[in-house]
Formats: sequence, structure tokens, C-alpha cells
Amino acid sequence: MRLRTVFTDSGESRAQVRIDGQWYTSSASEVASLLTQPDWRSTLGGQVGAGSAERVAPVVLNPTKIVCCGHNYRAHIEELGHPTPQFPTLFAKFADTLTAWDSDIALPGPAESVMFDWEAELAVVVGAELRHADRDTARAAIAGYTVANDFSVRSWQRRTPQWLQGKAFDATTPLGPELVTPEEIDPADGLRITCRVNGVQEQVGSTDDLVFDAPELLSYISSFTTLRPGDLVLTGTPGGVGTAHKPPRYLCGGDVVETEIEGIGVLRNRITAAST
Amino acid sequence: MRLRTVFTDSGESRAQVRIDGQWYTSSASEVASLLTQPDWRSTLGGQVGAGSAERVAPVVLNPTKIVCCGHNYRAHIEELGHPTPQFPTLFAKFADTLTAWDSDIALPGPAESVMFDWEAELAVVVGAELRHADRDTARAAIAGYTVANDFSVRSWQRRTPQWLQGKAFDATTPLGPELVTPEEIDPADGLRITCRVNGVQEQVGSTDDLVFDAPELLSYISSFTTLRPGDLVLTGTPGGVGTAHKPPRYLCGGDVVETEIEGIGVLRNRITAAST
Repeated sequence: MRLRTVFTDSGESRAQVRIDGQWYTSSASEVASLLTQPDWRSTLGGQVGAGSAERVAPVVLNPTKIVCCGHNYRAHIEELGHPTPQFPTLFAKFADTLTAWDSDIALPGPAESVMFDWEAELAVVVGAELRHADRDTARAAIAGYTVANDFSVRSWQRRTPQWLQGKAFDATTPLGPELVTPEEIDPADGLRITCRVNGVQEQVGSTDDLVFDAPELLSYISSFTTLRPGDLVLTGTPGGVGTAHKPPRYLCGGDVVETEIEGIGVLRNRITAAST
Repeated sequence: MRLRTVFTDSGESRAQVRIDGQWYTSSASEVASLLTQPDWRSTLGGQVGAGSAERVAPVVLNPTKIVCCGHNYRAHIEELGHPTPQFPTLFAKFADTLTAWDSDIALPGPAESVMFDWEAELAVVVGAELRHADRDTARAAIAGYTVANDFSVRSWQRRTPQWLQGKAFDATTPLGPELVTPEEIDPADGLRITCRVNGVQEQVGSTDDLVFDAPELLSYISSFTTLRPGDLVLTGTPGGVGTAHKPPRYLCGGDVVETEIEGIGVLRNRITAAST
């Protein structure tokens, strides 16, 4: 099963569901709302026409929580020269960071000073309320998986010991294009995750290389805070980020970044120069 | 002018405004909603009766953003042995962390292992949308000031390089009891901020000792993300936290913590043992 959120011609948002290769529109305003309706199959309306001008939105529009895990792929941890962590390194993002799978992303300043870097990530959407959940309960509460790029402003990320300000620029985290449910796919099977810049593969990893996998992260997070339908957990990035190049390689206006997870989907974002 | 949010007998929330020493109830569901209505004075209903059983809630119930600044009081920075920072150290909290000014706060585990510590803070509530705001614009967008305690689970805060998990336990950040508007009070005048544990003063500072004051913080945050009415900025804690004691001193079940800012108000929270 695949789900997505779209903006209609009239500017409203709607959840859509793919059945037998065709998209159907729901009365729910986005995927997160759909997930809160146990009988959501009954809300499905007509099939989406082939000529529809609808625009695909981020899978969820306004999660109350986005929790991100750093240092989670073994290969990326080795690249950074760190030991395998005992606990997940967690930080938050705001819903304002989210943008569509095909959005242009504006550099938040001159390319040479902002040091804008890519981070391909597997994103998990929560489907049920979780608090003090064990691993099995957490696993059962996963609504599905999608693709994110946690684009990072390294210069701001490094201004202070806390990463937030380099990770929280509005509209810098593309998310989508679709949510794929756990019946269809399991990251534990090892899905290939890649990031290409102007067609050149920069990152490659496998989703079975996570120190803390999706059920483990949701369980851990639920030990201190409540997760709810539509909340988002970003599971970290594999090796190959720009800052680990020797010398470092950061994004410039005109660069095109493709972020792909096998069996889930691909993001395609053009980087544009800062507005003056 | 003073504003607060209350829960009524029927479980609804309402904003209230104090005029000439008396509280009046608004039709707005909380202070954040009130702030979005330019004509909110016209929504005021009857005076609140003296025998009312209403319970004071956190000043804002569901901010989309809570941004906290660490290492901001010069005295606390010296206590930690750090140099004066060039940029504010920022991290996020979730709305679920908020609790009422007089709530009991449950330790999230055995006292000796969680290392639960106090952090008295001046909290700023945003009153208008801000993006790329200069200092004067940011100052004009401050709805008012209130009191917070950023109670911190030091053991979790130190598990990884990012503090979030030690700062994001549900219902551990009391906020209130009232919002005081900038016409009535200015932290730049130097308001005394204190934290007492079982009547013993542990923290004392002055709100004119901030490296980054409220307008500066709002302006800086707005350079990467949008702030909106009801959003919350916590400005950091003065010297005297428990972890800086030699040996460190952490909270136990039964301790009573009072957090006070001169001219704004006082929080009074009893710490309770972890539920088994």
C-alpha cells in the first residue's frame, strides 16, 4: 500500500491512496489525518485522473514531532571516526523544515559560507500513539516508510555544541514522495539508500546497516515522550556526506540532488542560489 | 497587563486577562489564540468569580516551536568554565514537556540514576509572526514574559552529544503562572531570578546578565525559521544548578522547587518519586 499527500488545484491538501496501481483521493486533508481514522478505506472517493494538475506535497504536513537520529549508519560512524554508540543521538526538527520531494531548495546564504550538505535518510511515519512502548509495540505502530534528505547548514550546525540551528532552516528537508506501508517493505531486509549530486553517486548504504533500527528508535523515543500518528522519525544518514570529502565538498546553486531508497522512491531537488 | 490560560470545571481551556486587579474570561481557548486576534479586548466576557474552581494551565498549551538557549547567563557560563559564546546555543523542546506552574513532577526513574536537576528560566512568548526580523522588529513582537523551569534529566542529557533526550521528558517543564506584557515589565531592567529547593536558595541571577537577550534571541532564531504567535523561547538559566554543586546535588521525591522572577511570578512544583 502507498499513500501520499497532494495539494489540489484549489490549494487544499488531500490524502491519496494507491490501489491496484491507481491513486484514489480521500476526504482526509493529509496522510497524518488519514492515519487517525481506523475506517479510512471507507473515505476513499474517485480515482485520480491522469491529467490531474495536483502537486505532491510532503507525506505529512504538520507533524507535532520530528525526531532525528545522528550517527546511526555503521559506515557513517566509521567515516567520522566515532565508536559505535550505546544510545541514539537525537535532535529535533520543526515541521517548517519540510518541503516537497521535487522542491527547489534555496541556499540560506552564499554557498562558500553556509556549507550546505546532503544527508539521505530513511524516514518513518508513526501510525499510532506510543508511550513506554517495547520494541514489538513500536514496530506495530509504524505506519510506513518514506524518503528524506536532512540537508544541513554545516557552518551553523558547528557554531555551537547543539546542532539544531544548522538543521532547522525552513523548507530544507524534502520528504516523500510516498509513504510505503510495512506490509510492502521492510528496511531490515536491506534497502539500498543513495544520494547523487548532478548524477554522481555520493552516498550509498543499506538500511540494514543501522545501529538503531526503526522499531528500536520509536521504542527509545517513547520512553521519554509520546509519539502520535503523523509524527516523523528520521533514522540518520549513511557514509558519503560532503563534509567528509577531502577537501570537503558542499552544494552550490544549480546542483541537483537525487535521494533514493530502493522500493520506496526518489527525491529530486535543485539547489538554488540565495536570494539577494 | 497580565494574561493566563485556565482549565474550566468542564475541562475546556480559556484565556483570561487581568484588568484593574480582576480576571476576565475571554472566548479564546488559550493565550496563544488570544494573541492572534487583534481585537481580543472585545472578546472579554464576565469577571471571574472569587470562588471559581478553575485551574491555571501553562500560559500557552501547544506552541508549534519551543526554542531554548543554553549557556546564556554570564554567571552560569563562568560556573561551567566556558568562554563567552559568539552565537546562542539552541535546542528544541516539544509542547508535551509543558506543565502547570503548580504541577507535581514525577521523576522519570530512580533519583540516584536519573540525576534530575533544576534550571530557572525567563520564558518569552512570541506575539507576531517573525522571519528575518531585526532586533527592533523582534522586540516589538514580544507578547510578554513568564517563568519556566527547564528541569533536566542530566543522565539522559549526557548519554550523547545532543541534549534533547534529557530535556524532552513529557510534563517536566512548568510554565506560568501568568504572561506579563512588555508595557509592564522589561527584563533589561534586571529582574531577580531565583530557584529555591525546600526553601534554600540554589540559583540567583539577574535578567540583565544575559549574553543574548530576548529581542536578540528572537531575531537570531527568525534568521533560520519562522516564529509565530504563541511560540516560546526559553532564555537559559543562571548559575547554581545542582550539577555544579561539589559534589553534585540532584532532586529526590518530596523536594519542593520554587522558581521565581521578580515582578512576573513564581512556580511551585513538588517532585514525586517515579511510579513503579
